[in-house]
Amino acid sequence: MNETIAKLMQHRSIRKFTKDPITQEQLDAILSAAQQASTSSNMQAYSIIGITDKVLRSELAKLAGNQAYIEESPVFLVWCADLYRWEQAAKRHYGEVIPSTTENFIIGTVDTALAAQNAAVAAESLGLGIVYIGGIRNQPDKVSELLKLPQHVYPVFGMCIGVPDQSPLERPRLPRQAVYFENTYKQDAIDSAIDAYDETLSAYMTARSNGKASATWSQSMAGKAGPVRIHMRSFLEKQGFKLE
Amino acid sequence: MNETIAKLMQHRSIRKFTKDPITQEQLDAILSAAQQASTSSNMQAYSIIGITDKVLRSELAKLAGNQAYIEESPVFLVWCADLYRWEQAAKRHYGEVIPSTTENFIIGTVDTALAAQNAAVAAESLGLGIVYIGGIRNQPDKVSELLKLPQHVYPVFGMCIGVPDQSPLERPRLPRQAVYFENTYKQDAIDSAIDAYDETLSAYMTARSNGKASATWSQSMAGKAGPVRIHMRSFLEKQGFKLE
Repeated sequence: MNETIAKLMQHRSIRKFTKDPITQEQLDAILSAAQQASTSSNMQAYSIIGITDKVLRSELAKLAGNQAYIEESPVFLVWCADLYRWEQAAKRHYGEVIPSTTENFIIGTVDTALAAQNAAVAAESLGLGIVYIGGIRNQPDKVSELLKLPQHVYPVFGMCIGVPDQSPLERPRLPRQAVYFENTYKQDAIDSAIDAYDETLSAYMTARSNGKASATWSQSMAGKAGPVRIHMRSFLEKQGFKLE
Repeated sequence: MNETIAKLMQHRSIRKFTKDPITQEQLDAILSAAQQASTSSNMQAYSIIGITDKVLRSELAKLAGNQAYIEESPVFLVWCADLYRWEQAAKRHYGEVIPSTTENFIIGTVDTALAAQNAAVAAESLGLGIVYIGGIRNQPDKVSELLKLPQHVYPVFGMCIGVPDQSPLERPRLPRQAVYFENTYKQDAIDSAIDAYDETLSAYMTARSNGKASATWSQSMAGKAGPVRIHMRSFLEKQGFKLE
């Protein structure tokens, strides 16, 4: 195993940071790595908003669920799927109305995630820690207004970056046979893998919480089964994504 | 700059591979790295189908645009957003109907991309080359049928992995000021950045094609502006994604 893979295997989300700043050189390296990620047909359909204004940061932290680390991390980035810039380029040579499609929505969302994950890997290679903030989609209309996002740009997730001030346990993942299949999907493999993972994760939760919690995976997943962030569809329509 | 960031900065898509195989150990490391990526609330909402059957590979290559490297690369993975497995777990403890939301569609698509990019980084750290295959969405209904994907699973992209048999130029990216903004999106910065990038990319295309092509970025982007893969919405509905 090489150093890069060793680092990838050590990933844990970090939710507590020291007061040490991130240098401009570190941030530049992280952003350069992000930009070098694969992108669909070179569309580069994402933008990154770095939040340096303290008042703005505090407002975003409230909108995203009020977690202290969003307000306190030295760097907080909002990763946006961005079809606007691509449209500005395309319409220089394309005379008709550019349709807003589900396909382009997928391209923007995927391009954003690929770039962000390169940033995460680069940050961790520098000894920094990161956590993704899905909570940026709790009130995406207000976030978009604060960040002055144009039509056809939407905030996919946030990311805190900083020097770790905690060392959480690595969370075990699903057994390989529930995630990787040869040639065809194996529905038969799922149930026993869930059984096994329920046990693994319950033991992990017990260890992590010093015995205070012991939820299985399926119990935790049931907690996410209700209608969560059901505003996303109407928000996206308001933001100009027609998903044709 | 450390070794990991140096590797990230050297990324180029590879579309020609030697006949050298990928070892089981290499594939295991790549899949382990993928599984260790961040995932929304530990949903791990993705699955990976490795295509080892030659007939199946050939059929998929035809469906995805008939590029030789899809048929010839030693490893070809189809990365799928997967809410099915999560639902199987959740419904063990959740008695009501689980809604199919745009939010969960985003989670599945993002989780898939984060895992895949970790796989790409791991592969490149081993000296291998990769290319993402968006063409897997050309005929996603047929792909889903061949791979026996259950409802609420869809193929997001493919990925070829192998030993590079070419050394393409690194493609320059958009200027930083068109992609990264402080605090608010800067629409004013876009036009001049497109001007500058049009020149950069035209020079790159000329060098790469030995003078046979010189398209600017905006010219290339206009080529993507028409209705592309407009079947995605109805395909996703057929696949059970209601996007409520």
